[in-house]
Amino acid sequence: MSEIDVHKIRELDPPQRVLMGPGPSNVHPRVYKALSMPIIGHLDPRFLQIMDEVQALLRWVFQTTNRFTLAMPGTGSSGMEATFVNTVEPGDTVIIGINGVFGNRMADIVERCGGNVIRVEAPWGQIVDPQRLEDAFNQANTPIKALAIVHAETSTGVRQPIEELGALCHQHDALFIVDAVTSLAGIELKVDEWEIDVCYSGTQKCLSCPPGLAPITFSDRAIEIVRNRSSKVQSWYLDLNMILNYWEDKSRAYHHTAPINMFYALREALRLVQEDTLERRHHIHRRQSNKFLMGCEDLGLEFFIEEEEYRLPMLNVIRIPDHVHDLAARQTLLLDYNLEIGAGLGELAGKVWRVGLMGETAKYANVVYLLEMLEPLIQHK
Amino acid sequence: MSEIDVHKIRELDPPQRVLMGPGPSNVHPRVYKALSMPIIGHLDPRFLQIMDEVQALLRWVFQTTNRFTLAMPGTGSSGMEATFVNTVEPGDTVIIGINGVFGNRMADIVERCGGNVIRVEAPWGQIVDPQRLEDAFNQANTPIKALAIVHAETSTGVRQPIEELGALCHQHDALFIVDAVTSLAGIELKVDEWEIDVCYSGTQKCLSCPPGLAPITFSDRAIEIVRNRSSKVQSWYLDLNMILNYWEDKSRAYHHTAPINMFYALREALRLVQEDTLERRHHIHRRQSNKFLMGCEDLGLEFFIEEEEYRLPMLNVIRIPDHVHDLAARQTLLLDYNLEIGAGLGELAGKVWRVGLMGETAKYANVVYLLEMLEPLIQHK
Repeated sequence: MSEIDVHKIRELDPPQRVLMGPGPSNVHPRVYKALSMPIIGHLDPRFLQIMDEVQALLRWVFQTTNRFTLAMPGTGSSGMEATFVNTVEPGDTVIIGINGVFGNRMADIVERCGGNVIRVEAPWGQIVDPQRLEDAFNQANTPIKALAIVHAETSTGVRQPIEELGALCHQHDALFIVDAVTSLAGIELKVDEWEIDVCYSGTQKCLSCPPGLAPITFSDRAIEIVRNRSSKVQSWYLDLNMILNYWEDKSRAYHHTAPINMFYALREALRLVQEDTLERRHHIHRRQSNKFLMGCEDLGLEFFIEEEEYRLPMLNVIRIPDHVHDLAARQTLLLDYNLEIGAGLGELAGKVWRVGLMGETAKYANVVYLLEMLEPLIQHK
Repeated sequence: MSEIDVHKIRELDPPQRVLMGPGPSNVHPRVYKALSMPIIGHLDPRFLQIMDEVQALLRWVFQTTNRFTLAMPGTGSSGMEATFVNTVEPGDTVIIGINGVFGNRMADIVERCGGNVIRVEAPWGQIVDPQRLEDAFNQANTPIKALAIVHAETSTGVRQPIEELGALCHQHDALFIVDAVTSLAGIELKVDEWEIDVCYSGTQKCLSCPPGLAPITFSDRAIEIVRNRSSKVQSWYLDLNMILNYWEDKSRAYHHTAPINMFYALREALRLVQEDTLERRHHIHRRQSNKFLMGCEDLGLEFFIEEEEYRLPMLNVIRIPDHVHDLAARQTLLLDYNLEIGAGLGELAGKVWRVGLMGETAKYANVVYLLEMLEPLIQHK
């Protein structure tokens, strides 16, 4: 139980960190400025226009013409939850590719929805072989509602190849669901071209916007399934049927109070990406990652993922040398140098560091700074 | 389908509105400043300290010593959903007092959790008679898991007397659940003294903070029920058992990425209330409401709630005169005078206006401005 005296809580003065963990990433001054613009009502015609603008920008960044493209009123995981509570009904079967924390989380949520999960697992740090996903379809003795997979596994730094999976799903009359929390605006992601039916993300990764909203897009096929459910969506807060009345229906019917200022911030973060272009953002991630990895090689650090083509440039996972104390090193970086890097998650705790180079954080100055500060920490004593 | 050209979306420039609707309310400059402070990580020791500070301030504003006092990562309705998904299991029976939109919403959510609802209804604009709630306990032929009621019905402006209901619930071994979305920091609310087991709120009403978090507090009795459930909480995102590991456990285990900057803002909004004192805030709401209602009487406007003692000072509901066009009048106020008032909700649509005087909005200048702008709009042509 805290014993904080509320009379003694002083004005906020957070440190200025370089955020090189798995998100949140650093935020552009224009986004902070937008965040603190004067609040207006959630049914104000100007706010409805802002929602429309955010929607247009989200369609652009997802590379989709999906009408049902919006932002859920919670952080990235609320996008994952919204996806499954809306599409999965009790008794449905979902194939899930699992090679890290977030694949496991998808399975957990599907089970909470009363769904059955066919787990197609791969060792952490490796991709899920697309052939094994195809086998799972062929071996299933029940209709498959959906195949779900993480595009960029934030716990391992693996880039899952997903380009061909949409066609596979649709041959089997299943939805194709993609977790793009860390990949959106980070690496190539083409919702329409890759036939993705539901794709969700967060704002605090490659969009470099503070956390608080979950961008999400649904194909017409997915929406038809949501609209024709035989059971009610178990979540009221994330019930797409009602949320779409607020976003899409002419009545703009009140559902919840949208987090207004978060929308201001997301709008500006998307404008920044749009001005830069997606291609340039992808290129910057690759370039800074290459520079960082070359520096790591010079320091004798090993990469967790062996196959170069499956490494995420925005999230570089390196093995912690045996002689280095994980927590002590990260604390020195954070508290002495205001530099945050990510710890290992789940079974990788204590074994790896996750170094984010996402959006605004992907700058050469940050790469140089981290390499310089790492060097003395990893030297043999 | 929107036809917005993303290349032509310009810098944000929202109008400066006087927000006299049912929330969001106006925001103090200090809160905007906090909102746009530099982001840090959700596991940064400084952020964990901010969470502790927010927790201490929330305990103070809820008037509770409950250890399990926190803010859910969504807007006010996520607090309602978190309450029921965590405490209600399939087959449980919950008595709900219903006299407006938000009582109905509670019933909807309980049913989505597989619970049975005993509805104790009253006409909109009237309180739910406590005697009828007691009768519901006595007439039930099944154990009652909880009694849930809205303290300040945002759809009608009714203040529900709840002081005695906690003792009633505990005689019957039931939880006492209170929706304090509009009442927290608006009128007297004493979680411990009134024996409330779960109390949730929003940030955008009398706390005058932008929407995006749901303050919530759980008694030890409520937490014991959450910890000893026989079924998993159906929501992963709002599963208190995991969220408390992040808030309360020494490990501070990662669950979701907290909406960091929203916490900055809530912390500052709570500091402002604390500096002012709750008593003074309550007094200001009563005083400005009295001035507004006197002005309404002078204009010949009628109050929707007949019994004065059950009127909420922060949300004043007035009948729209028959000769006045609801939408046209509100649009004139909004678009010509930057003044937002609330429309009627649900069965009161077109019949009433809801005038909020919450937190930062509760200023005499706003009361005078609204009365002056209303006068020509409601005059007989």
